[in-house]
Amino acid sequence: MAHRKKLKFGAIIHGVGGNISAWRHPEIPADASVSFPFYVQAAQKAEEGLFDLVFIADGLYINEKSIPHFLNRFEPITILSALAAATSKIGLVGTLSSSYSEPFTVARQFASLDMISGGRAGWNVVTSPLEGSARNYSKAEHPSHDERYQIAQEYLQVAKGLWDSWEDDAFVRDKASGVFFDPAKMHRLNHKGRFFSVEGPLNIARSKQGQPVIFQAGSSESGKDLAAKEADAVFTGQELLGDAKAFYRDVKDRAVAYGRSRDDLVILPGIGPIIGSTEAEAERKYEEIASLVSIDKALDYLGRFFDHHDFSQYPLDEPFPDIGDLGSNSFRSGTDKIKQTAKEEGLTLRQVALRSATPRGAFIGTPEKIADLIQQWHEEEAADGFIIHSAFPNGLTEFVELVVPILQRRGIYRTAYESDTLRGNLGVPIPANRHTVARSQAAAF
Amino acid sequence: MAHRKKLKFGAIIHGVGGNISAWRHPEIPADASVSFPFYVQAAQKAEEGLFDLVFIADGLYINEKSIPHFLNRFEPITILSALAAATSKIGLVGTLSSSYSEPFTVARQFASLDMISGGRAGWNVVTSPLEGSARNYSKAEHPSHDERYQIAQEYLQVAKGLWDSWEDDAFVRDKASGVFFDPAKMHRLNHKGRFFSVEGPLNIARSKQGQPVIFQAGSSESGKDLAAKEADAVFTGQELLGDAKAFYRDVKDRAVAYGRSRDDLVILPGIGPIIGSTEAEAERKYEEIASLVSIDKALDYLGRFFDHHDFSQYPLDEPFPDIGDLGSNSFRSGTDKIKQTAKEEGLTLRQVALRSATPRGAFIGTPEKIADLIQQWHEEEAADGFIIHSAFPNGLTEFVELVVPILQRRGIYRTAYESDTLRGNLGVPIPANRHTVARSQAAAF
Repeated sequence: MAHRKKLKFGAIIHGVGGNISAWRHPEIPADASVSFPFYVQAAQKAEEGLFDLVFIADGLYINEKSIPHFLNRFEPITILSALAAATSKIGLVGTLSSSYSEPFTVARQFASLDMISGGRAGWNVVTSPLEGSARNYSKAEHPSHDERYQIAQEYLQVAKGLWDSWEDDAFVRDKASGVFFDPAKMHRLNHKGRFFSVEGPLNIARSKQGQPVIFQAGSSESGKDLAAKEADAVFTGQELLGDAKAFYRDVKDRAVAYGRSRDDLVILPGIGPIIGSTEAEAERKYEEIASLVSIDKALDYLGRFFDHHDFSQYPLDEPFPDIGDLGSNSFRSGTDKIKQTAKEEGLTLRQVALRSATPRGAFIGTPEKIADLIQQWHEEEAADGFIIHSAFPNGLTEFVELVVPILQRRGIYRTAYESDTLRGNLGVPIPANRHTVARSQAAAF
Repeated sequence: MAHRKKLKFGAIIHGVGGNISAWRHPEIPADASVSFPFYVQAAQKAEEGLFDLVFIADGLYINEKSIPHFLNRFEPITILSALAAATSKIGLVGTLSSSYSEPFTVARQFASLDMISGGRAGWNVVTSPLEGSARNYSKAEHPSHDERYQIAQEYLQVAKGLWDSWEDDAFVRDKASGVFFDPAKMHRLNHKGRFFSVEGPLNIARSKQGQPVIFQAGSSESGKDLAAKEADAVFTGQELLGDAKAFYRDVKDRAVAYGRSRDDLVILPGIGPIIGSTEAEAERKYEEIASLVSIDKALDYLGRFFDHHDFSQYPLDEPFPDIGDLGSNSFRSGTDKIKQTAKEEGLTLRQVALRSATPRGAFIGTPEKIADLIQQWHEEEAADGFIIHSAFPNGLTEFVELVVPILQRRGIYRTAYESDTLRGNLGVPIPANRHTVARSQAAAF
């Protein structure tokens, strides 16, 4: 346990999050998911707390049963770009689907965000769990879970290739001679693969962090494999220390098997801290939020993970129903876990729905207790840091003002940004331009 | 000529523009096309001049012969979103291709920009002239000019339909009852057309300007027709007063034929004013910029309009060569005009190339002369306003500080923003939500 990197933190900003009915809380702005001032305030608060990044989640299909703040929210590329102008050090990470987009456009938009922000962009590559996405994108059917990951794999090769279109010293801009760029340092990708054919070059150069940071968030076998091979950071969802340690070890081992160093990627579980000045106050806060959810809304919420399955048809107080493989082509790791927990703990449908609608997690209590848990997870190699998704009233503010100073006093969290790029703060390597590497290798012979 | 709307202005921001070698000028920052501070400064200067909008152009294919500032530049959605946070009143308009994108994503990104900016977004719908775009987007071939406009037509129907997914009072957000939205005011589009199938609803509501402003910039027959039917604003390129008046009348007449009012869309020719304290100083400025372009670069530039045709194979000082239909599937109206002018004026290849590389236009002279020309074009119904694309050193600043006050004194340009939305300033109508209209029509029976 020598030389652990210091803790890393991200903040999910998602307006009226917390749970599906948190918007009803008197202190939560019910229109926060489309309030730019709300997003600016949260990003600036996270930057004040020296967080590595803000994180914007996403989805490509809604219906009447969707979570309220999913119905009407900012699109990640636009809100991150706007936040770039309202912040100066914090990373800007957003979800974008590799199943329903074009790599030339997406590589370009993230590269442009990276340039605008001075090297602070990150892309959370998702494959789109929701079947309905296909119907918004002129597709006959949603690709299977396996195929989505095959697409994502090729997609990332294309994006990373496009990002290396220009070597770092390609733009000479010599006014006297009239030479704007060195054509030998401009590279076409000429990719022809199973899913994509992309010639290039991309019409934007690399930022000072080389390439945008790649996040991966899937916890299925395919997801872990993609993360180990291609990602700089993993956003994961283990709630128990043992599970988190196993996941951490698994992904880092896979990365080593792909020839990478364990430090080349950081693993960041999402947690929703509930902070009180006493244990009792924290519990009271949880109850206050949980009590806002009706059982109908909780069933709708649960259904979302299972292709919007209608759970209202089953008795509420009997064991969780057998619904077969439903949902396995969407949020596979999530649905497996729900079914497994229901079976192991003998939960009723009502219990499963309410637990699912108001996540509680282990990180509840006084600032000291939360700092202890964070330190323990960090020391025991369950996490390199955390993505904080508290949307309880003032949740992020309380974390920054009450928990962060404790972690700083303990010497396990920064007291100033180490860098002004996201890679610099996360401590993940800047990828050398592949063509520059090839050139210098050729020169060595 | 009663009741003309006051003049409207837009500013193209494109870094090292002006001409293809303007970046060599000692006072022009050669890296401006990827300098966020440069873009912020220009947008804020345009806002200081009470301009209606800033405009970001785009393209989806580059090669060694592309214009320098096209090789490495910001992507429109990202830079406009960043500028939203750095400005408060000015409109934010960008080019995005309907030939190489998905309407669900594009409708969403512009709607999100519209919400972030408080109703200041505009989309310049282009069909992508460059054949090479297909090779960056996994397509076997670039669609024909006609097909691209058929796609654009259907694309706009889809986008406008998605923008009306939510009626303006759909989000109730009643904390007491737990009703977040009224499902009767959420609408699926269920579009099934020749090119697109899109179910909806879009996962973002309308901004306070209803829908983003639609710009159209094609001057071909298909382009004018699309503009007349669907656009709120036309960005055009006539250089001569007579041509501009004919174009203006033609498009407004077509709009009326589609059942619209002449005032429902504004026509904004692009001009590149060259301002001097005397006529001679203005001429000297033009010569200074023109002299930076070599004939080789000018030939490359000319070739770009003709599918990157290699003009270096022809004698420079003989009449412009006969190159048949080359380029007619790309910038059709531009190539027709170049060929026609060359023929009419008996120009050599060298003359055509140098004129094309350093546009001069009619708007050159003292601030008073430029104000006179602007007033004349406005009064004679050649323009409702102009898109200013001066990238001469301090061109935008000089226009704002020297020409704008003259126009204000003459009472033909605003002295304060009339509105904080782009539609409000342009004076184009806010489209009523189609479902709200249908509901109120049904109620009337």
